[in-house]
Amino acid sequence: MEEEKEVLTERILNAIKSRNASEVREIFETIPNIDIAECLDEVDDAAVFLYIFRTVSSEYTSDFFAELTTEQQELIINAFTDKQLIELLENSFADDIVDTLEEMPANVVNRVLKACPPDLRKDVNNLLNYKENTAGSVMTTEYLDMKDTLTVKDALKIIRTRGKDAETVYTIFVRDNKRNLEGTINLDDLIFADEDEKLEDIMDRDFVTCNVNDDQEEVANMFKRYDLNAMAVVNNENKIIGIITIDDVVDIIVEEATEDIAHLNQISNMDEPYLKTPVFKLVLKCAPWIIALMILQVFSTLILSSFESAIASLTILSVFTPLIMDAGGNAGGQTTTIIVRSLSLDEFEKGDFKRVVWKELRVAACIASVIATFAFGWLMFEMAVGIVDTKTAVENLGFGKVQVMFTIAGLVASTLFVTMVAARLIACMLPFLAKKLKLDPAVMCGPLTTTMVDVISLLTYFILWSTLFGRLLGL
Amino acid sequence: MEEEKEVLTERILNAIKSRNASEVREIFETIPNIDIAECLDEVDDAAVFLYIFRTVSSEYTSDFFAELTTEQQELIINAFTDKQLIELLENSFADDIVDTLEEMPANVVNRVLKACPPDLRKDVNNLLNYKENTAGSVMTTEYLDMKDTLTVKDALKIIRTRGKDAETVYTIFVRDNKRNLEGTINLDDLIFADEDEKLEDIMDRDFVTCNVNDDQEEVANMFKRYDLNAMAVVNNENKIIGIITIDDVVDIIVEEATEDIAHLNQISNMDEPYLKTPVFKLVLKCAPWIIALMILQVFSTLILSSFESAIASLTILSVFTPLIMDAGGNAGGQTTTIIVRSLSLDEFEKGDFKRVVWKELRVAACIASVIATFAFGWLMFEMAVGIVDTKTAVENLGFGKVQVMFTIAGLVASTLFVTMVAARLIACMLPFLAKKLKLDPAVMCGPLTTTMVDVISLLTYFILWSTLFGRLLGL
Repeated sequence: MEEEKEVLTERILNAIKSRNASEVREIFETIPNIDIAECLDEVDDAAVFLYIFRTVSSEYTSDFFAELTTEQQELIINAFTDKQLIELLENSFADDIVDTLEEMPANVVNRVLKACPPDLRKDVNNLLNYKENTAGSVMTTEYLDMKDTLTVKDALKIIRTRGKDAETVYTIFVRDNKRNLEGTINLDDLIFADEDEKLEDIMDRDFVTCNVNDDQEEVANMFKRYDLNAMAVVNNENKIIGIITIDDVVDIIVEEATEDIAHLNQISNMDEPYLKTPVFKLVLKCAPWIIALMILQVFSTLILSSFESAIASLTILSVFTPLIMDAGGNAGGQTTTIIVRSLSLDEFEKGDFKRVVWKELRVAACIASVIATFAFGWLMFEMAVGIVDTKTAVENLGFGKVQVMFTIAGLVASTLFVTMVAARLIACMLPFLAKKLKLDPAVMCGPLTTTMVDVISLLTYFILWSTLFGRLLGL
Repeated sequence: MEEEKEVLTERILNAIKSRNASEVREIFETIPNIDIAECLDEVDDAAVFLYIFRTVSSEYTSDFFAELTTEQQELIINAFTDKQLIELLENSFADDIVDTLEEMPANVVNRVLKACPPDLRKDVNNLLNYKENTAGSVMTTEYLDMKDTLTVKDALKIIRTRGKDAETVYTIFVRDNKRNLEGTINLDDLIFADEDEKLEDIMDRDFVTCNVNDDQEEVANMFKRYDLNAMAVVNNENKIIGIITIDDVVDIIVEEATEDIAHLNQISNMDEPYLKTPVFKLVLKCAPWIIALMILQVFSTLILSSFESAIASLTILSVFTPLIMDAGGNAGGQTTTIIVRSLSLDEFEKGDFKRVVWKELRVAACIASVIATFAFGWLMFEMAVGIVDTKTAVENLGFGKVQVMFTIAGLVASTLFVTMVAARLIACMLPFLAKKLKLDPAVMCGPLTTTMVDVISLLTYFILWSTLFGRLLGL
């Protein structure tokens, strides 16, 4: 791959340097734009790009501009004459222009908006106003809608004349006289149909739509659920104002999944490729979480400190503290992950909360029993073979090694049982609570669960020790 | 939502119970199949489904069968006569049939294969043989390929006659006489083109393909990168043998992201919706990880146990052990997540390993400095206000409270610095190593990193204490 890229880069740069127009055209006709853009990702000479746009037909460079880096785009816009800029914009879709503008300084934005044809400018301005991550912010306004009384023949004629300006012609939106959406038709059905049939007779009436303010994650889930190619976006009066196409949805799904992955693992987000993210940004995405978690740990620190005398009298207790806290953290993390992901994928319906808690209660009881039983055996083994030294404990407690082993393993296993059940129950409930409070479950639930589980496990450990076990053993 | 579903369920069941054929048809014409299937998800009476398939035209039930539960599908197949089964199969695509068969008992599989028309049976058998998660296992064999010498007019005629049997007609694959793939044409370009043009003159020559053995994740990344609707799958002789369409890719992306999320958070996988996964399966997905992590913890237990005397002489050391281990675990987890996700999204090229390590070294140094500095201040605060009791430490060490505070905070901060740097460096290197060894980075790297970081942090803590600090303080 690396080698191929070097060869290609050299070929492109040579062709441009020697002003070999036919070779440059051949390259753009046979190689995907994104591969060419990647080869040129370190070029910061506007002349190179001006030559490309002048030489190659816009048919082959239509999305080349969109694939360049923000810096390169700014460079090109500044180097373009107004006429060139207008030409570029006329071949672009409103949603791509918006994506570009969102990264540009104000003076560049103004220049671009001025160069836009009035219709396009209105669309771009509209799109720029929708809140991030809503259907409105990802939709495009260039779609084909047709009246329900048209014939298939007329519809195909309209597609031939107006279709090039639309983001997709694979889905046609059919409306009545009052611009109410009545149905959709896929292009293939139009081709399979009889020329004289009316759209209203062949359209699908079981279409779905989304509201312009819907969250993009919900939109993506609808595409998946209904296997759509394109979906109409409607306003509060139920009139169509834009469409979302499946290629945008692919990006949304990747973005939302990456966001969940980041938050579940205590990172602010991962919206840029790692190697393109500046060092200080990576520090900002990671360090605050570790500090926040350290501050939240104040509760467990407090508990550990107040039971210092218990530790002093039996230091073996401190050997198993990390084991208990880690097991609780892992169990909570597993449940948080499962529930948060299920919420993201829209798996739950209203009323499912109770079913989740009841299911989790059973899962937790099983896992807690398994883990407690295993831990008991494992600790007995660790102490028996001397991985954990019991000599001091035997001296301090004043009874035989086997009794010490049973006592310690029993204490840890009992604590683990309580910890596991608590961890999974807390972790399955918090995400629903966060969602109800309109907070991001992936952000809140990990740290909160860990903190609560740490407190519960440590208190159980030391209280079990100082009361039940202490009393049983007559200490 | 819940209420709507109840109303719809009642409407459907009433219509079927009263044998109201026109109402049943109306329902299937106006409501998406998946919504109907979900309403009927608890129906286990074959007669209900037989009535539906008999009453509603196959045009409206084409993917209804695929949306039903495995149990319902089995029920229907067993209730169908051979003739009905053949009819159902004729309207299905090979890849959907394969999805169904993979869940069925052997006798049902045999009956279905026998009922398949010979061509379809061959395709189904072929698809059943590809390894899971390869391009071959998700491709479909129903595509349209045409000779490059055809005219646009002829091509549209072929689409009208053969298109209904193809998974997509939006992308046409153009081949030469020897069945070598020469280019692709999108349906809209065909419609925009002049009737008499030849395919070879209007086809896109900058298409990309994948090999039948490529991993489905790579395929999904290519769709994203090149904004494709469909891609040809070729064999080792570079001949086209199938295609993958974007709706399959949406499923792949969700599946792969969910797998990463699961593995990064120590769960075997989450391939079924939570509420549909049996309790014992959830236990099996979670419990083994906690046990494995507990066993891996043997190293830190060993270290803690062998430094028990250091703890006994200064119990305050044990108060901060969890804080150090957790911070290291969190830092390692952040880096593992970032690198594993970047590898999944195919962000790195050959030779990027060194760039990643160099970048991570700088990030780690910054974060380690920030965290160590913060921790120093935070511990000073905790000890100053009495969250952590220093009385015993003052007695044991035999010098003033302020000196004790500086000593402990300095020791923890130094340990954290080493831990942070080690955690991030190990975590950024292991995923590359795992990939080189053809292991799943998301599975291996979390637990391995945690284990190594735990060992490093505890050794640093106690060795720093017993040598450097111990000597400095003349203990």
